[in-house]
Amino acid sequence: MPTRQFKLGAFLMQTGHHIAAWRHPDAQADAGVNFRHYADLARRAEAAKFDAIFLADAVGVRNRDIPSLSRTARSDNFEPLTLLSALAAVTERIGLIATVSTTYNEPYHVARKFASLDHISGGRSGWNLVTSSGESEAQNFSRAEHMEHATRYARAAEFHDVVLGLWDSWEDDAFVRDRDSGVYFTPEKLHPLHHRGDHFQVRGPLNAARSPQGRPVVVQAGASLAGRELAARTAEVIFVAHQTFDEAQTFYRDIKRRARDLGRDPDHVKIMPGIFPVVGRTQAEAERKFAQLQDLIHPVVGVQLLTNMLGGFDVSGYPVDGPVPDLPETNAGKSRQQLLVDLARRENLSIRDLYLRIAGARGHQQIVGTPQGIADQLQQWFEEEGADGFNIMSPWFPGGLDDFIELVLPELRRRGLFRTEYEGRTLREHLGLPRPPHPAATARAQRLQEQPAPALAASAG
Amino acid sequence: MPTRQFKLGAFLMQTGHHIAAWRHPDAQADAGVNFRHYADLARRAEAAKFDAIFLADAVGVRNRDIPSLSRTARSDNFEPLTLLSALAAVTERIGLIATVSTTYNEPYHVARKFASLDHISGGRSGWNLVTSSGESEAQNFSRAEHMEHATRYARAAEFHDVVLGLWDSWEDDAFVRDRDSGVYFTPEKLHPLHHRGDHFQVRGPLNAARSPQGRPVVVQAGASLAGRELAARTAEVIFVAHQTFDEAQTFYRDIKRRARDLGRDPDHVKIMPGIFPVVGRTQAEAERKFAQLQDLIHPVVGVQLLTNMLGGFDVSGYPVDGPVPDLPETNAGKSRQQLLVDLARRENLSIRDLYLRIAGARGHQQIVGTPQGIADQLQQWFEEEGADGFNIMSPWFPGGLDDFIELVLPELRRRGLFRTEYEGRTLREHLGLPRPPHPAATARAQRLQEQPAPALAASAG
Repeated sequence: MPTRQFKLGAFLMQTGHHIAAWRHPDAQADAGVNFRHYADLARRAEAAKFDAIFLADAVGVRNRDIPSLSRTARSDNFEPLTLLSALAAVTERIGLIATVSTTYNEPYHVARKFASLDHISGGRSGWNLVTSSGESEAQNFSRAEHMEHATRYARAAEFHDVVLGLWDSWEDDAFVRDRDSGVYFTPEKLHPLHHRGDHFQVRGPLNAARSPQGRPVVVQAGASLAGRELAARTAEVIFVAHQTFDEAQTFYRDIKRRARDLGRDPDHVKIMPGIFPVVGRTQAEAERKFAQLQDLIHPVVGVQLLTNMLGGFDVSGYPVDGPVPDLPETNAGKSRQQLLVDLARRENLSIRDLYLRIAGARGHQQIVGTPQGIADQLQQWFEEEGADGFNIMSPWFPGGLDDFIELVLPELRRRGLFRTEYEGRTLREHLGLPRPPHPAATARAQRLQEQPAPALAASAG
Repeated sequence: MPTRQFKLGAFLMQTGHHIAAWRHPDAQADAGVNFRHYADLARRAEAAKFDAIFLADAVGVRNRDIPSLSRTARSDNFEPLTLLSALAAVTERIGLIATVSTTYNEPYHVARKFASLDHISGGRSGWNLVTSSGESEAQNFSRAEHMEHATRYARAAEFHDVVLGLWDSWEDDAFVRDRDSGVYFTPEKLHPLHHRGDHFQVRGPLNAARSPQGRPVVVQAGASLAGRELAARTAEVIFVAHQTFDEAQTFYRDIKRRARDLGRDPDHVKIMPGIFPVVGRTQAEAERKFAQLQDLIHPVVGVQLLTNMLGGFDVSGYPVDGPVPDLPETNAGKSRQQLLVDLARRENLSIRDLYLRIAGARGHQQIVGTPQGIADQLQQWFEEEGADGFNIMSPWFPGGLDDFIELVLPELRRRGLFRTEYEGRTLREHLGLPRPPHPAATARAQRLQEQPAPALAASAG
């Protein structure tokens, strides 16, 4: 067992995470329709031994403000699961994590697609479970209003349990496929779900064999109280936004404690904050690179971005160089919005200052610095209970990712903090997460241990 | 323009279309979890210049009868869209058609996934629009009973219209991505859908650019009256099951007449019956190959298969060598079931005879013969208004597909009936279907023609 090392995700997003990335001279402006662009990024991340690539999602165009929308690259992109499946075919080792919302989906479809991707990729799939808020998405799914926060989370929790149950429809060795006897599967190893809950009634079984990882890896991003409760119970990886080390450490300790209290091994919940790194060989070079991007932000785009990050609370009527107003009560994505206002208060930021601050990292930790400086900060978070790893949100693609790979990774490797070769084949193996045994197989083994020679009862439904 | 030639689909299905294919000594018994198997088949079909590969689907395990289910390879397979996206990355020219039901899906998801696949594949995607019947699927989607026939079709028709509307969310040249001016798209070329119908309310726009084909190709499979009406209005390819030439010709003429009556060019509705070919260099060799497969069918499997093909009407209580009983009234997939009973009556088939007959082709046309004999029959259907092409349902994979490619295709090419090289790049180009212009662009061009110098009004929503 090597020393504990970073887990690293490459969070791929179209032209890049900076709001003006598409205007960068080295960016791929048509990234949203360019499969080769994504294939190239995935291969670079794999060559650099990242644990996984990570794709966000929205089921709609969230911004309804045409003047700002028409100046950003936020309206056209691939659907994450079709993109990730295609990327599975052009990569061999790197994990593949896609975001799929529980709010406007059916658990049977979601269970099936991630199981299928796990089979296609040889055990590399992960599901970032989120809920959808906002009318712009609701109105694409025959709903006038979006679902209330508590309902969304209750639905998400049940959705999760149904998906995991469906992934266990078949024991690992159910399919014997014996040509001579003509037996394709062993009936006793089939376990239809027969779920009847408040939000879903799902009989099962899933029409897919148990996948190479047993279950694809479950990732979550919630930082609200309901999100933390769900994540502590169910998440194997948590993707989170923090502005300060103290925030990160408080969150980290809270989640690990909650997981322990629920009987889970806290080491099986990997906490990976998002990091937006702008890397230069010198501090001045890093700052020049960042300024180049910041200068490309149109004020119309900046003000609308802040409005969106504040859950739709329109700040365009306030003076752009005046203070950030207090938030009204709202039910959408509560925690992240308050974190932003807290940041503005703490550092006395104007509206313009704040939108410039979030334009890249969208509330995540932004580090503009040298490889040593960036490595220092990541190492502190990693060693002092702030993070198990990081989701790298490159300012623009491909250059911003290349900078991280070529400048920061060698420094991390010198410090023994990141792998030089994959240790395993599956995403679980990369992350150090155990492969979950099938519950029925576990129960059978226990029965055999307790009663040396039992008559096994058939349990097929 | 070359002489009219066959359109050919390679209908890939796990181990093969014969119910006992998985037991064939040359079959890939673990096809349902073997991506390389599918990648290999797709590449063979592409090398042979098929128009498309075609994937069926069911959102559940349809057969609840464990004794027969456990003896067939019908319970584990890839999800079609994840599989097809991965296959897009390992092929370059062949069309990619996946079945997705309108009954338990949302049009926004479906529009998005096929648009995404069209971008990934460079214009090769096609959607086989079906409805789902049967409780085994309904019960995976929180419904106790399946949707009634007429409701299913009304929903499917509206679903189709919403999907096409979403595909037209953006004009082809909406995304200018001009780095200097900072304009990413032209607001006037954005057209949110604002659909408000009986089954769906979908605002849009789709968060994807208009795809290379303008719209992915729409395929349908309905043979019932409601299915025909929908197909004549909306389908660009019709996949259908026929037992006799007369049936095929009647259907072909009916659909082409309906399309013409609706103002469509009948040549833009390609009718492609399913064909189950067992090919031998001699008739005796073909029959030996077929007998080898038929001998592998367990009677438990055969009787249950017939029950399923009769819409769940249980025939296991009737003598297996006695006549096929009359069908009760039912609302599930009406036409196909009656076609089967008609076939039994016409040829005086027992239950065993009938299940042996459908074990491979599942109601489609089964031809056991030489390359010349098979070519003769296909040519007749093609030249005498029975078909524009065929969807080839190989008895087992890969051998059954190889036989068709190596023995039948050369014969078809000698007769000038099938291409030797792709003429185009997209599925529409392979099929000879026009690329649909964007309605707003068409309207603008008309306005310009009528009024030489108008002031163009902004139409963004």
